[in-house]
Amino acid sequence: MTNTASKTRVLTGITTTGTPHLGNYVGAIRPAIQASLDPNVQSYYFMADLHALIKSQDPARVQQSRLEIAATWLALGLNTDNAIFYRQSDVIETTELMWLLSCVCDKGRMNRAHAYKAAVADNQAEGQDDDKGVTMGLFGYPVLMAADILLFNAHKVPVGRDQIQHIEMARDIATRFNYLFKEEFFTLPEAVVDETTDVLVGLDGRKMSKSYNNTIPLFSTEKELLKLVRKITTNSLEPGEPKDPDTCSLFEIYSAFATADETAAMRVKYLEGIGWGAAKNELFEYLNGVLSEPRARYTELMQNPAYIEQVLIRGAERARDEATPFMARLRKAVGLGRFA
Amino acid sequence: MTNTASKTRVLTGITTTGTPHLGNYVGAIRPAIQASLDPNVQSYYFMADLHALIKSQDPARVQQSRLEIAATWLALGLNTDNAIFYRQSDVIETTELMWLLSCVCDKGRMNRAHAYKAAVADNQAEGQDDDKGVTMGLFGYPVLMAADILLFNAHKVPVGRDQIQHIEMARDIATRFNYLFKEEFFTLPEAVVDETTDVLVGLDGRKMSKSYNNTIPLFSTEKELLKLVRKITTNSLEPGEPKDPDTCSLFEIYSAFATADETAAMRVKYLEGIGWGAAKNELFEYLNGVLSEPRARYTELMQNPAYIEQVLIRGAERARDEATPFMARLRKAVGLGRFA
Repeated sequence: MTNTASKTRVLTGITTTGTPHLGNYVGAIRPAIQASLDPNVQSYYFMADLHALIKSQDPARVQQSRLEIAATWLALGLNTDNAIFYRQSDVIETTELMWLLSCVCDKGRMNRAHAYKAAVADNQAEGQDDDKGVTMGLFGYPVLMAADILLFNAHKVPVGRDQIQHIEMARDIATRFNYLFKEEFFTLPEAVVDETTDVLVGLDGRKMSKSYNNTIPLFSTEKELLKLVRKITTNSLEPGEPKDPDTCSLFEIYSAFATADETAAMRVKYLEGIGWGAAKNELFEYLNGVLSEPRARYTELMQNPAYIEQVLIRGAERARDEATPFMARLRKAVGLGRFA
Repeated sequence: MTNTASKTRVLTGITTTGTPHLGNYVGAIRPAIQASLDPNVQSYYFMADLHALIKSQDPARVQQSRLEIAATWLALGLNTDNAIFYRQSDVIETTELMWLLSCVCDKGRMNRAHAYKAAVADNQAEGQDDDKGVTMGLFGYPVLMAADILLFNAHKVPVGRDQIQHIEMARDIATRFNYLFKEEFFTLPEAVVDETTDVLVGLDGRKMSKSYNNTIPLFSTEKELLKLVRKITTNSLEPGEPKDPDTCSLFEIYSAFATADETAAMRVKYLEGIGWGAAKNELFEYLNGVLSEPRARYTELMQNPAYIEQVLIRGAERARDEATPFMARLRKAVGLGRFA
């Protein structure tokens, strides 16, 4: 074992709502799993299931989604010996730290959070009370996120552009705590935004997203995958007519999976006038080739929840091995130490 | 051991700021300790040290106050075999439950909390931003209090008049949770307000309160106690002149400690014109007689923090024996259960 303390700590939260699709894979899962293999990085991956409660009051759905997400990441080869992989809700210290941070975090800061402001703007547009439908969970969400990050003193946090503000809030809260309690307890985290891998197009040519209902689930069956690939929107050019790869959804998806050489070869086929049916078949074959092995692992894992549980419990134990002594230090710092 | 489940559960939060004085004793500590002796009640007493962080960022003070308060309650005879006596911060499930409740609690409800509204009104009166100086801890305080209560499904919660709203909020949050997750997880708590024992007068004739700086600390030394009793404000009537016991601070304090017969006898002395010096001596002697034994126990306890720690750890274990399985049920209910 390498010494963890000297490594760069990278913490990634995984949303646990919905079923993972190709866009999630290309934009988030694949780069994260690649990062988990780097021995110079101590990575933390947690399923943000406490956050999930803000949006969903459907227990069966939350539970199923957590299982699917865990199986997905394991099937795709997350290295859980190197990376620490856990459920947020298994690291109870997170909510304890949230309280300590709440007591040094100005409410005014939360008033200015984008997600909350957007909710207020929507309510105002509809002539409703500003806070209609806003729960304390939604309002306090950035403080929970700060706790997620600061509990492990993460150096880097890969996030989408919309989350940059939350990392800044975590930095501000950390700075305030360090100042008030006169010690550098918390490292100031940095947001890491990878603009290039953000987006994959969906069936209709728009960004692939659950909310557009245009996704290709990552672990569709072979038959379903073929059916969905055939549904991808193309233009009306006939076979034999040259086609522009750079405005084509099929090509974009293909290139997100294929090597540079394979992509270059496909580009030539487009210019030579490959028919849409043939292009779709090629895309299907390629995706199916890449996905069939992890799909088999996924199916197997989904039939063995006890194994997944065991992996996650071990991850939580590793996380708590760090969180528990750190919280003891923080408790003492604020005046909640043991008497003897 | 009697079966806990069938008993009425009474939960009392103890503020852990400041040094306990005679007013605290008469108004809160004494009735609570008497209640702890009732074998038909399962009582929970917790030091609200997470709440203390809202007001104090002085760790040494928070720590010292917690120790003094624990020593005080033990010195005064809290029955810790019957009652469950613990530090809030030792029952980490409290903050976990707070998060679950936050996700079903409307922010609008907190906007209407008295303490928050008072802070906003003060800011507005000074032309400041509404939320100046308001932390997320202060704003979310009623949700933490709901978690304190609901974690043990307390039937009754003795509170001051200013806290009634918070108990109503706890009921509302509990009702919402039970409704959303389709089971009567939470008992609806009732506020118990004892108007009669609320107030004891201080040195200057106003209500005895830390904020008026007119208190007599419960465990002053004998010398200090005498000095403070001599400082109690009286009028200018001479010895031999009849005096009105019902408008006299000395008499009020005396009667809060003495038996009915003793109080009646003192009333006669007032009407017969007892001098203020003599009345003060009688009060001192009476208080000193009542307090000398617990004061000695208190002094001994303060020299033995390891013993206090052990008592509180045992209390926390008893509390968590209930809280841990209950939280497992609640986690499962919201969709955060184990996979196997």
